[in-house]
Amino acid sequence: MAYPTFRRTFLVAACALFAATAGTARELPPKPSVADIVKASKPSDWRPLDPDNTLYMDMPFGRVVIELAPAFAPNHVKNIKALVREHYFDGLAIVRVQDNWVVQWADPNEDNDKARPVKGAQKTLKAEFTVPIKNDTHFTRLPDVDGYAPQVGHSNGFPVGRDPKTGETWLAHCYGMVGVGRDNDADSGGGTALYAVIGPARHLDRNITVVGRVISGMPQLAALPRGPAPMGFYDKPEMNVPITSIKVAADVPPAQRSHVEVMRTDSATYQAVLDAQRNRGGPWTKVPAGHLDLCAAPIPVREQP
Amino acid sequence: MAYPTFRRTFLVAACALFAATAGTARELPPKPSVADIVKASKPSDWRPLDPDNTLYMDMPFGRVVIELAPAFAPNHVKNIKALVREHYFDGLAIVRVQDNWVVQWADPNEDNDKARPVKGAQKTLKAEFTVPIKNDTHFTRLPDVDGYAPQVGHSNGFPVGRDPKTGETWLAHCYGMVGVGRDNDADSGGGTALYAVIGPARHLDRNITVVGRVISGMPQLAALPRGPAPMGFYDKPEMNVPITSIKVAADVPPAQRSHVEVMRTDSATYQAVLDAQRNRGGPWTKVPAGHLDLCAAPIPVREQP
Repeated sequence: MAYPTFRRTFLVAACALFAATAGTARELPPKPSVADIVKASKPSDWRPLDPDNTLYMDMPFGRVVIELAPAFAPNHVKNIKALVREHYFDGLAIVRVQDNWVVQWADPNEDNDKARPVKGAQKTLKAEFTVPIKNDTHFTRLPDVDGYAPQVGHSNGFPVGRDPKTGETWLAHCYGMVGVGRDNDADSGGGTALYAVIGPARHLDRNITVVGRVISGMPQLAALPRGPAPMGFYDKPEMNVPITSIKVAADVPPAQRSHVEVMRTDSATYQAVLDAQRNRGGPWTKVPAGHLDLCAAPIPVREQP
Repeated sequence: MAYPTFRRTFLVAACALFAATAGTARELPPKPSVADIVKASKPSDWRPLDPDNTLYMDMPFGRVVIELAPAFAPNHVKNIKALVREHYFDGLAIVRVQDNWVVQWADPNEDNDKARPVKGAQKTLKAEFTVPIKNDTHFTRLPDVDGYAPQVGHSNGFPVGRDPKTGETWLAHCYGMVGVGRDNDADSGGGTALYAVIGPARHLDRNITVVGRVISGMPQLAALPRGPAPMGFYDKPEMNVPITSIKVAADVPPAQRSHVEVMRTDSATYQAVLDAQRNRGGPWTKVPAGHLDLCAAPIPVREQP
């Protein structure tokens, strides 16, 4: 079986000698893979999710875990938690899947008289497209060039861009990032319509308030049927994928919580992960990329041991 | 309904005046969207697919149209057409979907004694990871910086990288590109296992022979269930998605052919498409990206009028 994947180097480590003898003129020395580095990591390389800033979106296909980023969108994170706690999302649905772009959930009746009312939370908020760099105390910079931001890297498990000239930093629209849908007015979103990124969307950076990242559940979200209507909307109510409920993890009994950990992106182990992606070793890889795009940098997640 | 998408600028053009009055301090002047430019394009901005270098992969969910790139992988394209014409793929299956990575089709029995024999075609070929720049007569360069190649752009409808120092050019692993699975040996692939890219994979550039691009059918391929086995393989035979047949378009009666056209990437109209993506106008966009990643550059396709 032939694999178009670097992971092959991990799975066929035992074949390395064979490959070295049977292989090509451009054999690279083997290097630890990301899987090797994760396997060899220390407990201190990982952090648990903060239950106060973790959402569980329970769906027919299972639980989607979302880590919120209050350092980058404090008011929107607060408002989304208020919406969750007034059960705004319970029984709403995924209403849109646009291929290679976004999966969006909202009130299917948002535009008609059956629209669900917002009670104590805010319907709209002032945009939080960027925050002052000083608010970001966990930034580790990638050395790799980026076309969308003067600097890119990671902040406490989130991909970010920053501009030292303006003093701004922002969450980057990489795969699995969660943003706040809005209309033309920058301040027209509040969190009642949210989306997860499933395609190249970096041009949305600094144009939308980004509130967090899907930590588990992306394979299920990304495999949902694409919507046939313009922009990937489902055009029949029966196509909508119902949301059983969205809860703040802190409000869920500990026995029912998901116990996942995220690798600390300010750890030396994470730097090794990045290098393993940037410059792969043999025997599968023939030409190391020598570059790692921000959105191609994996952020390892694991079940708590 | 709130939309995290530039297409909103097209759909709410009529609201631009309202948005300008109700809008924010950072209102951008409206600009034509990609949809506007496609709508205003001339017949000469488009080219039909060459039936001799087009594959139809007929699946239970419909037809996947693949444009082959003989200029970049002449021997593999020739061999894949030979495999198709000996009906090698008919009744085989999609055996692997790895989230945010690849969709792969091959012989589910490849590793056992029920493996389908290769008759007149070759099982493996010498790698065609790159070709001499002189072979590429249609290159139009993107001005945008790229971390994976010294130069990037498009060649006759395909995203490409090139290195003037080595005199090499190659097809880039963007969404929908089709590559040839292989084992560790660079020359161990031949086209019996093929994959389509559904996630960031540019680090595979120059490590795999890329043979073409999916022109239609990506939304169906990308929405297939992810495989539960390592690397996204389906671990039960009933999970495999059967291939009804793969045919060369030239072998299909004209009445049964798909009539799609691809925008000429060396046209002025395509340059306008790229600029519309690189620097969007208002009212939705507040901060134009000022950059367009190679794999975020759309290559418009349409039904022949």
